[in-house]
Amino acid sequence: MRATVMYGAGDVQIETVADARLAEPTDALVTVTRAAICGSDLWPYKSMEPSETGRRMGHEFIGVVEDAGAEVQTLKAGDLVVSPFVWSDGTCIFCQEGLQTSCLHGGRYGDEGVDGGQGEAVRVPQADGTLVVLPVGKDDELMPSLLALTDVMATGHYAALSAEVGPGKTVAVVGDGAVGLCGVIATRRLDAERIILLGRHPDRIALAKEFGATDVVSERGDEAVERVRELTGGLGAHSVLECVGLEQSTATALRIVRPGGAVGRVGVPQAESIPEGVTTFFDNVTIAGGPAPARAYIEELLPDVLEGRINPGRVFDSVTDLDGVPDGYRAMNDRKALKVMVEP
Amino acid sequence: MRATVMYGAGDVQIETVADARLAEPTDALVTVTRAAICGSDLWPYKSMEPSETGRRMGHEFIGVVEDAGAEVQTLKAGDLVVSPFVWSDGTCIFCQEGLQTSCLHGGRYGDEGVDGGQGEAVRVPQADGTLVVLPVGKDDELMPSLLALTDVMATGHYAALSAEVGPGKTVAVVGDGAVGLCGVIATRRLDAERIILLGRHPDRIALAKEFGATDVVSERGDEAVERVRELTGGLGAHSVLECVGLEQSTATALRIVRPGGAVGRVGVPQAESIPEGVTTFFDNVTIAGGPAPARAYIEELLPDVLEGRINPGRVFDSVTDLDGVPDGYRAMNDRKALKVMVEP
Repeated sequence: MRATVMYGAGDVQIETVADARLAEPTDALVTVTRAAICGSDLWPYKSMEPSETGRRMGHEFIGVVEDAGAEVQTLKAGDLVVSPFVWSDGTCIFCQEGLQTSCLHGGRYGDEGVDGGQGEAVRVPQADGTLVVLPVGKDDELMPSLLALTDVMATGHYAALSAEVGPGKTVAVVGDGAVGLCGVIATRRLDAERIILLGRHPDRIALAKEFGATDVVSERGDEAVERVRELTGGLGAHSVLECVGLEQSTATALRIVRPGGAVGRVGVPQAESIPEGVTTFFDNVTIAGGPAPARAYIEELLPDVLEGRINPGRVFDSVTDLDGVPDGYRAMNDRKALKVMVEP
Repeated sequence: MRATVMYGAGDVQIETVADARLAEPTDALVTVTRAAICGSDLWPYKSMEPSETGRRMGHEFIGVVEDAGAEVQTLKAGDLVVSPFVWSDGTCIFCQEGLQTSCLHGGRYGDEGVDGGQGEAVRVPQADGTLVVLPVGKDDELMPSLLALTDVMATGHYAALSAEVGPGKTVAVVGDGAVGLCGVIATRRLDAERIILLGRHPDRIALAKEFGATDVVSERGDEAVERVRELTGGLGAHSVLECVGLEQSTATALRIVRPGGAVGRVGVPQAESIPEGVTTFFDNVTIAGGPAPARAYIEELLPDVLEGRINPGRVFDSVTDLDGVPDGYRAMNDRKALKVMVEP
């Protein structure tokens, strides 16, 4: 089969690899019908050390079950399924608590011996725990929004939950990438009163406004902090969604939150530590978040997608086949594309 | 009147200072009947630069209202009152939200022009917002526990709330000082299932066990982390109360929390930043806390003290008059006293 392999920074290739096939009795074999390129795929695209063996890429996909191992009980051939960006058994203590990203028997697509989503097919480990059956056809017009549930919409939702978004609150969303835009959707969905987007790309800002952003701050650093303070009567935002993952954006997020407020950090931040010297302790700020347990949120958000109340699929502004994936990486890295959908 | 003044590290003196008197119409004049020395008083005791003018000390006290300004409505001469460790107006947006430590018109005892609690009397600014009338006599046997509400018990309670303590949870309390011990009381009060105390002083450990600690870890650093992991089936604690405030203790707290868990930081930490290199992002750990809004918790905890359900006053193991306050600092700094109560 054909799949996407990254060999180093800027070096993405479409190659013939070993066909995906069942290995464990808990596996499902899924033919990919839609996949996506993630903002987090751009981190290795910018910085990966050259590798002879390369790394299989992609962790967002929808597909059709072709076959399932003997122990798989909830899936059958022909089911259309959506996968969260990590696989998980659904039964361990963390899965039971809804924190499937910490599953004791889970793992990541693209890891050694595991397929990536940007290819023709995927062996999905722990299929019962991982996959969610979709009640639509494989070419349903909702595909982009359903595909967004694999990661970016779940991540925006988790950012909002971590930042304690709720009715009446003033919320700041740092970043106008796909996660930030989904953060706006999630914030609107949770009935925030005011949504301040920090971003600088006119097309993304326009989309954010359609999603519910009420104010836009395009400054950065000190000026952004000052602008948010002006907009919030000097107090800052109750909830701040950090949707960029760099040191400066994290510092900005921590500086625009109001005393007693919360900052939700998500994704795969490059600046994983809290920036030195930005201290929110005496303001009683809560810092929460992490990689979103998308598996927990797919079922929660699915009705809203199916009934058209949210349309996160609008973050996809580009579609390609597998051969176009390397160009898709380039376009996203150059900010010529917001998010690329792949039809293998 | 006589009051405690610190002139530099190790230099605490009892002096005659200007009598406390009403200055603003929102003030109350309070004769101090009980005060305390706080663990946070020991930070300047260890490190304060020499000062010619000195700093008035003390922020934990109970006393009798002698007089009140024209705008004070809820207090009258003769009322026995307890003060939280900061003063606050009770009406600003943060006070309304229960975050009196961020009061827009509040401040700290001992700041320029404001008395400290370790003295014969205190001018209490914003008296209506700050003081809580106590329904007992000034020498009631509950005085130690009522005095603990000014700071240390409220702080332990806030640590527990910030760490999301609740029924069925496994909780670790880092530190066996007065705050840590009150953290154990608060954790027990919130129906945690298991309470692991990290501490090394036999007398404090014994008290922690009386308060409800179920396990004790006396190792430090890597060994403490390993021991907590052993005690928790390798998972870590759901909730961790950081009640020391040093860099190593904060790092330990972050390393013993379970994925999806929460760390509550309180007090006046010397290590205000999150230690570099201890990253909990991928474990979805929440970091919360700050200076406890004690004013919000005095009323919440008061019935439990009055009805004897909690006895935080047991953290006072020493009583002195004003003349003995310098020795009290020394005893606490040398760990010969856990917490000193002052009867001016």
